[in-house]
Amino acid sequence: MRQPAHGGNLAWAAALAGCPPDAILDFSASISPLGPPNSAIAAIQSQIGNLRHYPDPNYSELRVALSHFHQLPFEWILPGNGSAELLTLAGRELAQLAATFLITPAFGDYYRTLAAHNANLLEFPVGLGAEDWGLGIREKGTGHWGLGIGENGTQGERKVRSVSLSPYLPIPPSLDLPVSGPQRCGLLLNNPHNPTGKLFSRDSVLPYLEEFALVVVDEAFMDFLPPDEEQSLISLVQEYENLVVLRSLTKFYSLPGLRLGYAIAHPERLSRWQLWRDPWPVNTLAAAAAIAALQDTQFQQQTWLWLPPARNQLFQGLAAIPGLHPLKSAANFLLVESKQSILPLQQQLLQHHQILIRDCLSFKELGDRFFRVAVRTESDNQRLLTALNEC
Amino acid sequence: MRQPAHGGNLAWAAALAGCPPDAILDFSASISPLGPPNSAIAAIQSQIGNLRHYPDPNYSELRVALSHFHQLPFEWILPGNGSAELLTLAGRELAQLAATFLITPAFGDYYRTLAAHNANLLEFPVGLGAEDWGLGIREKGTGHWGLGIGENGTQGERKVRSVSLSPYLPIPPSLDLPVSGPQRCGLLLNNPHNPTGKLFSRDSVLPYLEEFALVVVDEAFMDFLPPDEEQSLISLVQEYENLVVLRSLTKFYSLPGLRLGYAIAHPERLSRWQLWRDPWPVNTLAAAAAIAALQDTQFQQQTWLWLPPARNQLFQGLAAIPGLHPLKSAANFLLVESKQSILPLQQQLLQHHQILIRDCLSFKELGDRFFRVAVRTESDNQRLLTALNEC
Repeated sequence: MRQPAHGGNLAWAAALAGCPPDAILDFSASISPLGPPNSAIAAIQSQIGNLRHYPDPNYSELRVALSHFHQLPFEWILPGNGSAELLTLAGRELAQLAATFLITPAFGDYYRTLAAHNANLLEFPVGLGAEDWGLGIREKGTGHWGLGIGENGTQGERKVRSVSLSPYLPIPPSLDLPVSGPQRCGLLLNNPHNPTGKLFSRDSVLPYLEEFALVVVDEAFMDFLPPDEEQSLISLVQEYENLVVLRSLTKFYSLPGLRLGYAIAHPERLSRWQLWRDPWPVNTLAAAAAIAALQDTQFQQQTWLWLPPARNQLFQGLAAIPGLHPLKSAANFLLVESKQSILPLQQQLLQHHQILIRDCLSFKELGDRFFRVAVRTESDNQRLLTALNEC
Repeated sequence: MRQPAHGGNLAWAAALAGCPPDAILDFSASISPLGPPNSAIAAIQSQIGNLRHYPDPNYSELRVALSHFHQLPFEWILPGNGSAELLTLAGRELAQLAATFLITPAFGDYYRTLAAHNANLLEFPVGLGAEDWGLGIREKGTGHWGLGIGENGTQGERKVRSVSLSPYLPIPPSLDLPVSGPQRCGLLLNNPHNPTGKLFSRDSVLPYLEEFALVVVDEAFMDFLPPDEEQSLISLVQEYENLVVLRSLTKFYSLPGLRLGYAIAHPERLSRWQLWRDPWPVNTLAAAAAIAALQDTQFQQQTWLWLPPARNQLFQGLAAIPGLHPLKSAANFLLVESKQSILPLQQQLLQHHQILIRDCLSFKELGDRFFRVAVRTESDNQRLLTALNEC
């Protein structure tokens, strides 16, 4: 059986572990262990009788709920069949630009969606070791651009060098980029960044809204940060026509099987997207679950209370294991570097403990010496740590 | 409130009728009144606990079920978020050809999907009055093509004239079509045809598989025909690489809120499509419901027993009303021509009887003198007929 390209393919893991998929303790998919909220399940149950009707093609009720949640007029919000569907539409827009700057390692579906529309791609690796970083892109010499990471958006040469960022990639001549800047290019950014868990501050991204023709920020994990810590760009959408924010209800509310995400962007852009896809992308049950989940402040509070201590427990436990080096993370997962290939470890965990961790083979920059684990409940985390100590 | 562009927008109707949406007797959406099957509802219920996992991106179980159902290897089948999603992917392929031939009046989403990819479009109206027809396309003079309808695929001049079909449309010079034939063009066909309910015989479509670069047949209503009467092209897919068949589980199983359809075509084409869209288009509940529904032979038999007499009852009742002329239909709906605008009638039915019929304003060729009604249970049909007789 082929190794799956995406985390959460339990069938593959179950076959290797010799148990039913339900018996696997899954650290590979970065999904909250607290959900789905009962409110969302009840909403799904209540709508089963409505499946005989088409969904409202305007998704008015859902958009009003999102509008209240984000304090934005509802024309600025477009629900989709998971944020992955909306990413594909964003990819079509990015492909119309001279090139798309992509921070790597990057979620595999970013490459798929850019390739789907034949977009030109410029990859900029982030440094993995630095504690301090932001995001910086600037010119270095004629015809060369660099994408750098510096603390709090510092874009100086020193900071960029200090986190040993990307070499300043020469622009392929075929791209014919203007030397004056990335005004004809797009930027596709993941914040918090997957798989590292790094958070880019709002201020550090701000300059790129001025520079790039289009900035697409995938904030699939941003809701794991409590309101006083989050660095979402949603509050800037009405100021910057060239900004698109993608959000997901998959991870925070543990509903990846339901498919629900949304885009926040200028209404004209969203109207254009609407014509590029079918009229009923979101099914009735997903729309109902989303409305209930957004209003479930108790579940949200519970999640913000659970995550920091659980993540810290897992981080400390991993750091204490010789040969493993976890990275600080603002999200609900940790990237862990190992001194050796983690593939034998992954197999041992499955076969002896029915625990699945996410190898990072699909992130081509990381190879086989990294794995990613979701933060789960303290007892699950402890089960993983105990198993790792036994391997 | 704006008149909705698609049937089944109950919110608009309920506002006009002054009642809750649930109280509307909906003849506007061409959905079976018998479903959803209990088997599908039970399958949905059983999978709610699995929403915390991603769907299998290969949808293996669902594709195996579809494979058994259609007696085809499962690589030839691609599930989607409603057949509307797959239509959009088909539109991208059609747009790569010199032009797409479209039989009109056509479902509004065909125009949307072709426009989404800037496809060139050649429209060919079908005759509405003829009892006998098939489908015929042939050259008439240099640089002109005609799409004609003749009984059993007869393509002779006489038959084409006899059903007073399209004028032979001159090809716009900008299209630069080869005079030799439509080999560089696509054909987008709906069979049975919506909104007329006409069925094109398999034999009548066969010649176009030889002629066109790509033939996309939307068979959203084909499952309403019992096995010994259906004219699906699915059995020809393995012979013709240029054939795509789209199917829906929406209408037959009364599940439009769930979004589930599939495409049947050459595996290489489907693999290409898969890269054009996100990896999890079908949610877990829809996949489970589909598997159960496909195996529910009792529900299928029940539908085939219900439809012919119920349709006949409705047809005869409508034909007996002065000024109304229903068209013979192979599907679960009837197109009805009126001597005058049907808009006052639509409003009266809503306000006095809480009954919604589908006006045909969105079919630009039909205008305001046609309406479409779904075939429902005999008592519902009778309620409509009684109300119409009172109007």
